[in-house]
Amino acid sequence: MKALYLEKAQLKIITLPQPSPLRNEALVKVLKAGLCNTDLELIRGYLEFEGIPGHEFVGQVVEAANSNLVGKRVVGDINLGCGKCEYCLGGRKEHCPSRQVLGILNKDGALAEYLTLPMDNLHVLPPRISDVEAVFIEPLAASLEILEQIRIRRQDSVLVLGDGKLGLLIAQVLKLKTPKVSCVGKHRRKLEILKEKEIETHLLGTRIREKFDIVVEATGNEKGLNEALSVAKAKGTIILKSTFQGETKVDVSKVVVDEIHLIGSRCGPFSRAIEVLSRKQVEVEKMVDGDFPLDRAKEAFAFAQKPETLKVLITP
Amino acid sequence: MKALYLEKAQLKIITLPQPSPLRNEALVKVLKAGLCNTDLELIRGYLEFEGIPGHEFVGQVVEAANSNLVGKRVVGDINLGCGKCEYCLGGRKEHCPSRQVLGILNKDGALAEYLTLPMDNLHVLPPRISDVEAVFIEPLAASLEILEQIRIRRQDSVLVLGDGKLGLLIAQVLKLKTPKVSCVGKHRRKLEILKEKEIETHLLGTRIREKFDIVVEATGNEKGLNEALSVAKAKGTIILKSTFQGETKVDVSKVVVDEIHLIGSRCGPFSRAIEVLSRKQVEVEKMVDGDFPLDRAKEAFAFAQKPETLKVLITP
Repeated sequence: MKALYLEKAQLKIITLPQPSPLRNEALVKVLKAGLCNTDLELIRGYLEFEGIPGHEFVGQVVEAANSNLVGKRVVGDINLGCGKCEYCLGGRKEHCPSRQVLGILNKDGALAEYLTLPMDNLHVLPPRISDVEAVFIEPLAASLEILEQIRIRRQDSVLVLGDGKLGLLIAQVLKLKTPKVSCVGKHRRKLEILKEKEIETHLLGTRIREKFDIVVEATGNEKGLNEALSVAKAKGTIILKSTFQGETKVDVSKVVVDEIHLIGSRCGPFSRAIEVLSRKQVEVEKMVDGDFPLDRAKEAFAFAQKPETLKVLITP
Repeated sequence: MKALYLEKAQLKIITLPQPSPLRNEALVKVLKAGLCNTDLELIRGYLEFEGIPGHEFVGQVVEAANSNLVGKRVVGDINLGCGKCEYCLGGRKEHCPSRQVLGILNKDGALAEYLTLPMDNLHVLPPRISDVEAVFIEPLAASLEILEQIRIRRQDSVLVLGDGKLGLLIAQVLKLKTPKVSCVGKHRRKLEILKEKEIETHLLGTRIREKFDIVVEATGNEKGLNEALSVAKAKGTIILKSTFQGETKVDVSKVVVDEIHLIGSRCGPFSRAIEVLSRKQVEVEKMVDGDFPLDRAKEAFAFAQKPETLKVLITP
């Protein structure tokens, strides 16, 4: 099969044998995949990943021990746990110390014609979710994870830092809980998507005098946390969503004196994301800026790295 | 009156007029005061404080509009709020944006013969708490704040980083909630106080293979947070207690990937601290390494700065 392969920070299109599913796995033909900021970080050396990248996808099951799955259109939870540790037994395999993560950690990903995933990881899609929408289920689930971690009350004010792909999803998701959601971003065009959802928007650099009960850091860069600290109320909560290579200088004393809660937030519930998309509660299709064939995946990565680009899709 | 005065990072003993209490304040004769790590940070420039330092004290009310208070032995909550903002109205005056803090922020402190504090800040002491014990009420309250912020279950494992004054109090307080408390410190003598309370202790540098549900960072230095991150379980909680001048380099992606909760923690409930001390549930007197007259306060500071020193008291 054709696949995009990352090795020593270089991407190349190569031909590989079609993967063989393990007994608990399904073989999935990839219908469409999406590029995420983490993919861009991987090619900058994050996690030193080598293999086929890609973890946002929709596909069709070609082969599986469970015959009910064969032929079904699916998305898939990207974490594979050992099944035995306290995290796996507690239903949080995304924290299994020996986990594999699709296209991120010791497991080939979705930027290929086929992938394999445990059957338990797969979620069958209802027909009313399109392939393009389905690619957003993984990042939408990650956005919904915030609602699993903290209670947001209708009176809480929320500021989302970052108008990237994840920031736009998060702002829309939090808007389902409180009317008081604002977003700070760099791009008028991206913020426009939120304005249509009646979310207040500010261009970066605008002075914001208000302080917020909840601040979500989704800038994807190291400055985000300190910006978040400067606009969070005392006793406020900061949700950290950005993963990137390197360290950030933080004024830890401010966290202590203001008794801030900082909460790291990663993968989330696929079933909730499928529900939210089925109900058309968030806008995703307007976020698509390009759809490239797999052959042109390197070009797709180059396009995705431009600051003004939102979601880039790849169709094998 | 005689007072210790901090100006341009220099301490000196000077004579000042006895302070005049405002209408809502009491005049308190200081019986005994304690030095805390924050005091040592102040003389290194933290918060650029100028004035009389000192915020841990026990005193006797000399003058107050409420005559019931006069003659009483008291300790005092160190935060003075505006009384009007959302924090003051919500009972969290320690987060009032225009607050004063005794001996720390725009309010002369306890290293003098007299101080003033709002009558509402004062707590009358039961006779079974000695003057020496009473000086520990403020830091003990700060330790108990952790129990206000998170729920600790009997099965939770806790690691306290730091065997300083605050670390020793915190380890003892958390031991009231779970048997699984350990402490990492630099000094055998200090850790000995915890061993007597059946708290597991490790000398810094010992390799700790276990990971912990809850880690309390009380090292007082910038390395503490990264040490805490290296021993916290995924989905674990890190309580931050150290305040110091400067910034710390943090691997923010680790916080995100492991979905760590980082919680800043500062002042706490005096009434609970008085209760805990009345019941002799924590050992404090063994932590006293010196008691200096006010005239020798500079010497007391020099002694307190030695790494091996625990609590230093000053008696005006």
